[in-house]
Amino acid sequence: MGLLVVGSLGLDTVITPFDKIEEALGGSASYISLAASYFGGPIEFVGVVGSDFPKEYIKIIEDHNVDTEGLQIVEGGKTFRWTGKYHYDLNMRDTLSTELNVFEKFDPVIPDNFKKSKFICLGNIDPVLQSRVLDQMEDPQFVVCDTMNFWIEGKKDDLLKLLKRVDVLIINDSEARLLAHEPNLIRAARMIRELGPKILIIKKGEHGALLFVEDIVFSAPAYPMETIFDPTGAGDSFAGGFIGYLYKTRSLSPDSLKRAVIYGSTMASFCVEKFSKKVLKNYLTCRYKIVLENL
Amino acid sequence: MGLLVVGSLGLDTVITPFDKIEEALGGSASYISLAASYFGGPIEFVGVVGSDFPKEYIKIIEDHNVDTEGLQIVEGGKTFRWTGKYHYDLNMRDTLSTELNVFEKFDPVIPDNFKKSKFICLGNIDPVLQSRVLDQMEDPQFVVCDTMNFWIEGKKDDLLKLLKRVDVLIINDSEARLLAHEPNLIRAARMIRELGPKILIIKKGEHGALLFVEDIVFSAPAYPMETIFDPTGAGDSFAGGFIGYLYKTRSLSPDSLKRAVIYGSTMASFCVEKFSKKVLKNYLTCRYKIVLENL
Repeated sequence: MGLLVVGSLGLDTVITPFDKIEEALGGSASYISLAASYFGGPIEFVGVVGSDFPKEYIKIIEDHNVDTEGLQIVEGGKTFRWTGKYHYDLNMRDTLSTELNVFEKFDPVIPDNFKKSKFICLGNIDPVLQSRVLDQMEDPQFVVCDTMNFWIEGKKDDLLKLLKRVDVLIINDSEARLLAHEPNLIRAARMIRELGPKILIIKKGEHGALLFVEDIVFSAPAYPMETIFDPTGAGDSFAGGFIGYLYKTRSLSPDSLKRAVIYGSTMASFCVEKFSKKVLKNYLTCRYKIVLENL
Repeated sequence: MGLLVVGSLGLDTVITPFDKIEEALGGSASYISLAASYFGGPIEFVGVVGSDFPKEYIKIIEDHNVDTEGLQIVEGGKTFRWTGKYHYDLNMRDTLSTELNVFEKFDPVIPDNFKKSKFICLGNIDPVLQSRVLDQMEDPQFVVCDTMNFWIEGKKDDLLKLLKRVDVLIINDSEARLLAHEPNLIRAARMIRELGPKILIIKKGEHGALLFVEDIVFSAPAYPMETIFDPTGAGDSFAGGFIGYLYKTRSLSPDSLKRAVIYGSTMASFCVEKFSKKVLKNYLTCRYKIVLENL
């Protein structure tokens, strides 16, 4: 039994004030899987690409202890593509284009081998598809779920149904305010937890993240960074680090959840500076310790 | 020898979506003094008001172990007044009016009794006046200084001269970006510390505060609050809690500075919810512990 990750897989074109990257490996599930893999895995991957998806990207994923049996490759289909542009302060971005392509008709099919998995991370896709994943699982015990303003605004009812079935919801601050119709984050958190998820994480970019569990509000800092090249995937890397650590330790106590949030922040920090994946493993513990020691 | 506090004293009219308060006790020095007083004092106060300043406000200050020998009362003069309006999310405010009045010609005169003090907190006033305070001190050893965008934009040269003489600068995130001409806060912090202050605190409102000391970046959360009535004075209450704690312990180690930041955040949290000052002392330790335990 592995850690099941379902989400998008795509080709990202990203323009920052410093650089332009074309058709890079992107999508929520790829960032989540790679980040989670540094904690051991194995990761069970479910997603869809077209036949234009580079073989070397599949190899990168597989080289990270990720089982791609659940990856559908649509013959003659085009892979999901996203193009975005970041502004000078890197906190704001514009989506220049989104091509759903093969994602438009995606129906996540969970391979029999994956159905017994207890730890599930639902990357940011249509909440209807996220629910369909859970329908196929035999005994899901710890479900982490991401979503975004697009679904909060466009598929609220489906999202609300899904939320009753998830243990942890991870969203950013503007999404939390939108979901709860409440500007105060602490009040918004209380209202969102009444919708289902016992545990809520609100990501705040450079300001870190808030974890709500039991009656605890844990405020985790972001790793202080002087150089940010490209924030794409930071939120998914956070989710991957978070669930990767919990899957490894199999402990869900508040203390473990706090540690998992710090590991999530740490993985996000590597993501935004595009730290070479080859040396990442050695630096992970080091940066994690730096964050904890300075709390 | 006490803790010397110099700054403005005024009458604030504050409009929030919930309430309107007219001619309340305000000004940087009043918030700093009251917050610092909860750590023991004595506080030595230097400021100016007109003869229209309510006697009961002076009594409130004096009842908090504050020596008002340095308070100038200008006969026939009008006290500094500020009127501000907060928006629904309470993060944004508009200044509706500022009347400098007696502050226009204020020349801070330090009473002889106060000149030997080692701990000095320069509230947000003209950097020329802040420097003039330091000129009169015999042996200032720990100088904490606040400023704002108005002085960064209008009196940059005077501010830069002052910064070479202060140990701790406390500003908010937008002021830090403005002062350094740099959007990244970690880089901005490095640049600002090269201007003089060995220790820098960047306040980020609901996102807490960053302390930079030696090679440490300490990220302190804000106390998570569901109910914020009026944010006026939060930054000054932070400064008061910060220096009040350090003055009490007389320790300036990085660990003490971290604790002082947590005490500053705690005092700011009481300020924004307008917690009754009568019971504040008992709750201070309690809330401080809650923040620390959840780090």
